[in-house]
Amino acid sequence: MKHLEAFHDSHENFYRSPFGAVVCNQEIVIRIKIDSLEELKKVYIKSLNSRGEEELYPMSCHQEIEGIKIYQAKIVAPSFPCLLHYFFVIETVAKNYYYGNNEESLGGKGLLKEEEPFTYQITVYKEEAFVPSWFKEGIIYQIFPDRFYREGYQQELLEIKKNSFIYGSWGDTPMYIREKDSNEILRWDFFGGNLLGIIKKLPYLKELGISVIYLNPIFISPSNHRYDISDYKTIDPLLGNNRLFKELCTAAEAMGIAIVLDGVFSHTGSDSIYFNKEGNYPTLGAYQSEESPYYSWYRFYEFPHSYDCWWGISNMPNVNEMEKSYIDFIIDKEDSVLKYWMNLGAKGWRLDVADELPDAFIKKFKKVMREVDQDAVLIGEVWEDASNKVSYGEKREYLLGEELDSVMNYPFREALVNFFTEKISVEYFNRRLMSLYENYPKAYFYSMMNLIGSHDVPRILTLLGEQVVDHQLTQGEREKQKLNAKERGLAVRRLKLLVLFQMTFPGVPSIYYGDEVGMEGLEDPLNRGTYPWGRGDEDLLQWYKKIISLRNGNDVFKSGEWLPLYSCENIYGFIRKNHDQESVILFNRSRKEESAVSIDIGSKIESNHMKDVLYHDEKIYIKNRNMKITLKPLEGKIFIGDKN
Amino acid sequence: MKHLEAFHDSHENFYRSPFGAVVCNQEIVIRIKIDSLEELKKVYIKSLNSRGEEELYPMSCHQEIEGIKIYQAKIVAPSFPCLLHYFFVIETVAKNYYYGNNEESLGGKGLLKEEEPFTYQITVYKEEAFVPSWFKEGIIYQIFPDRFYREGYQQELLEIKKNSFIYGSWGDTPMYIREKDSNEILRWDFFGGNLLGIIKKLPYLKELGISVIYLNPIFISPSNHRYDISDYKTIDPLLGNNRLFKELCTAAEAMGIAIVLDGVFSHTGSDSIYFNKEGNYPTLGAYQSEESPYYSWYRFYEFPHSYDCWWGISNMPNVNEMEKSYIDFIIDKEDSVLKYWMNLGAKGWRLDVADELPDAFIKKFKKVMREVDQDAVLIGEVWEDASNKVSYGEKREYLLGEELDSVMNYPFREALVNFFTEKISVEYFNRRLMSLYENYPKAYFYSMMNLIGSHDVPRILTLLGEQVVDHQLTQGEREKQKLNAKERGLAVRRLKLLVLFQMTFPGVPSIYYGDEVGMEGLEDPLNRGTYPWGRGDEDLLQWYKKIISLRNGNDVFKSGEWLPLYSCENIYGFIRKNHDQESVILFNRSRKEESAVSIDIGSKIESNHMKDVLYHDEKIYIKNRNMKITLKPLEGKIFIGDKN
Repeated sequence: MKHLEAFHDSHENFYRSPFGAVVCNQEIVIRIKIDSLEELKKVYIKSLNSRGEEELYPMSCHQEIEGIKIYQAKIVAPSFPCLLHYFFVIETVAKNYYYGNNEESLGGKGLLKEEEPFTYQITVYKEEAFVPSWFKEGIIYQIFPDRFYREGYQQELLEIKKNSFIYGSWGDTPMYIREKDSNEILRWDFFGGNLLGIIKKLPYLKELGISVIYLNPIFISPSNHRYDISDYKTIDPLLGNNRLFKELCTAAEAMGIAIVLDGVFSHTGSDSIYFNKEGNYPTLGAYQSEESPYYSWYRFYEFPHSYDCWWGISNMPNVNEMEKSYIDFIIDKEDSVLKYWMNLGAKGWRLDVADELPDAFIKKFKKVMREVDQDAVLIGEVWEDASNKVSYGEKREYLLGEELDSVMNYPFREALVNFFTEKISVEYFNRRLMSLYENYPKAYFYSMMNLIGSHDVPRILTLLGEQVVDHQLTQGEREKQKLNAKERGLAVRRLKLLVLFQMTFPGVPSIYYGDEVGMEGLEDPLNRGTYPWGRGDEDLLQWYKKIISLRNGNDVFKSGEWLPLYSCENIYGFIRKNHDQESVILFNRSRKEESAVSIDIGSKIESNHMKDVLYHDEKIYIKNRNMKITLKPLEGKIFIGDKN
Repeated sequence: MKHLEAFHDSHENFYRSPFGAVVCNQEIVIRIKIDSLEELKKVYIKSLNSRGEEELYPMSCHQEIEGIKIYQAKIVAPSFPCLLHYFFVIETVAKNYYYGNNEESLGGKGLLKEEEPFTYQITVYKEEAFVPSWFKEGIIYQIFPDRFYREGYQQELLEIKKNSFIYGSWGDTPMYIREKDSNEILRWDFFGGNLLGIIKKLPYLKELGISVIYLNPIFISPSNHRYDISDYKTIDPLLGNNRLFKELCTAAEAMGIAIVLDGVFSHTGSDSIYFNKEGNYPTLGAYQSEESPYYSWYRFYEFPHSYDCWWGISNMPNVNEMEKSYIDFIIDKEDSVLKYWMNLGAKGWRLDVADELPDAFIKKFKKVMREVDQDAVLIGEVWEDASNKVSYGEKREYLLGEELDSVMNYPFREALVNFFTEKISVEYFNRRLMSLYENYPKAYFYSMMNLIGSHDVPRILTLLGEQVVDHQLTQGEREKQKLNAKERGLAVRRLKLLVLFQMTFPGVPSIYYGDEVGMEGLEDPLNRGTYPWGRGDEDLLQWYKKIISLRNGNDVFKSGEWLPLYSCENIYGFIRKNHDQESVILFNRSRKEESAVSIDIGSKIESNHMKDVLYHDEKIYIKNRNMKITLKPLEGKIFIGDKN
């Protein structure tokens, strides 16, 4: 036996209260349990906030049972939004002990150390944090515009893009056409999906049940992804025109669907009005002359050939986001990019590479966006836990109240994929989710963009069928790497569970176009295939519709409290509850037969009976606060009960 | 001084008469001049024909002047078409000497050796050799169908070609889309030029002055070059349909233009009705089963994966041309490929890789073709001097009367390019032309397809601008390798001379689409750009029209006798004459000023005055049989005189 043992679990109310993120100035009670053979000299909490301010909080013995002592301190959150980090110092006569976060810094149970430990995190946010409810209660559908649907397309429109290709058939496999050695793109390839195509398919989206469309970039650019923007104020002619964008917004709004644009503000295209490297525009571009009105937007190492660019890609020169003329152009002016598109009907923006934009730029953008439309929404592209992301050496403040309303929840996606493909344990899966739950201010936890697919990751079905990107394979071989019937069968069953999870979990579910009909594809460009109109998996689509309709029809899934539930090695679930409804959602990720799994939820729910809403409406009565549920392999279940 | 000197010049009538190729059984007088200090024991000619039959012809002293002796023998050409080779043996008391062809085997002056020398060639052909006069008197225009003109094109047509690309703009730069390491084609690329486009542009071709269109393959195939045929009996849907082909033939015929098809009979496509490797056709293909009716067409090393294919390219399996069912299908049956297309209006065929087709196949094809249409024409793809080409270890008999009517005259093209870019001397240039003149039966020398461009060589303008294919360059860099203004200026001036040469030389001139408006481009695919409608070099086009009209208007250029003329290092020319007309054509290839070049043509022409028809119609009187002509740098001139 050790001389000293200690225990703290940030997820338990007894040890830290309130749970998770707190508002500024809030008092937090923190406790630690210590079982020591040595005499304790002093126990205190050491805290450090984002401004570098340290504080020591002496702890006093709150309780003692059979020699085991509970120490307690009340600390007060700073008066400004920040991250507050803490750990415990336990001084004995012999030496000092430290108790802090676990190795993965996921919160919850920690570790006793003899040197300074990892710190626990308390996210401190502004009380007034507000996210528009239409967004929090909505469901997003992400469209990569070149690949969704083509209507009234004319090839002649492509003439603006010299040296480009159009795929011969809508069902062709997308590919990059690269220079052999340098891998540079030699030609851009287009299917010709367009805005008219999206307008045409609004009824499909409405029927699916989604309420937000997030569009990958649509402004004129040389490429098919359009992240190398040539002109922030013009819709790419291949997609349509500015009038058609307005029509899209109007038609969508009439169906209760909001349009969110992709805002690419860390760089422009080199072949643009502003940089004009190819001389394709009549303007005097920064590349052409130091006298260019856009010269100050860019950072030249040696004019004009050497300049700062995004990830070293020379056709995407980085901009000085805080340069006044750029801020004016993008945000402030009467006809700024932000205002122009919102006036045409955009209801929000997704900021590309938000972690490469200065905090001040995002704050400014958010402020002006809300002035134009107080119900507009701002989403950020962040790949990690956005509460504590460090980028370029600085802690970022995306979610402390003045910046983003939501971020793309890639950690959620990763945890789900790893769980359902049995790569991580149920217990670890729960810790990953708990960590997000703890670190995100609750308002934001409920407004996360909970995606399971996007244009930047392999298609979910392909991953669930356990296909991996093998860089040894040639392009031609990788194109042919499709799921076989057995793999696909497994993948579809898993995907159905994932969707059920996504649609019943706190946060805004996001569907990457075509995932709902079983599109496959490894990494970019294979994850950017065309929507297979008329050839999709109809059964999967019906599942999506059913689950989406369950979410849309039950507020408990949008705003209800979330409580994790897990028991044996393959079963995970959670409870959602609000003032009048309760739901229990359970998943069996195993392919092997599991029988009669009994889960004690008696103490957690109030209803006396619940309905199995997925398969039949039969009521299940809960006896002795026990709910006996049998989950077959790869089965998920939802029960809903009314409290009264 | 040597003990013995000898001289024979096969180009001189004194030494060999008649000149050049002869008909079967013809008597030929052959002489050799010998100046010897040693006593001559015996002088004889040793001949060898294609059947391996040797003969010795003793030579007798025909004449002796100041100790120099002229030996003579009469030999008789074999009674069958073949090549007859000969050299001289001179036996002295001391040792034997041999006199034979020069190192380059070009005929003309030879070499005295002490071991067996290279042989002289006499081509022996069938008297009845007949080439239709519409062809001999015509001018060919070669069209690569995907790239000429697009009319009424619908992209949907491409759906038959899964995973293909259409270029975004007509003016885009063609490229191959290959697998990075294996270089295999990953996607085929199309501009969508079609038969309707050709029909639409017939008036343009008529005005240009051409009378034959040679079309690269037009039958359904996966690729844009269509040499990997899927179905010999169907026009590629992207090009049109069989009815449109008939319309094209009818419309062309009405304008006096004949259509010649590309016949690809050494291999089929692997993705075809016959081989059906991809299973895209409802037929039972050879690849699918040994029971396939097409199984015997192919040579499998190991069924089905390993089979004989054209240059190792797996999507072009070679066929057994002499297999009866193949011959039936292609040639013999009532609805054979040959008959089917000729009945729709084709006036002839160009046989792809003729050197890989058995003699017997070509003869059979020719015979049946002539039965269907006695005025039809058969052209072969042969890259070398077709009179003595050896392929697969056998001497070929393309031009001995029963096979081809014409071959693609690549040696002519090569000589011209090298001459005008100053890579070879005037004298060597003349020897190259003389060699062709000597070796080809005269009828064929006048029916050669005298091309200066084709789909298989870099664009003529690019070569004349002295651009070379640099395999060190990346694809992207090579695409950008265009002529600068100075290079282009030089190239255009040279091209004008080349065209003048081509149009006044014996044989059928062939224009590769777009050369007439100055298209540039290095090797395939850059030599297969789209015709630049509305953006071509109008001045060059006018030159083409003028020269073509000169040829079309003066029979002397079509059938007149040909006599080379050359004097100083940069001037070359020739005389053409028939019973009532004479023409002198002269070229100065030099970029440097050359003045008042005086050429003695008095003994060669009969007219007393000639007209400079190119620049002005001023008559030039020939005094004392001297014609003083000044040629400026890079200038060409044509004079025409009437004999009576």
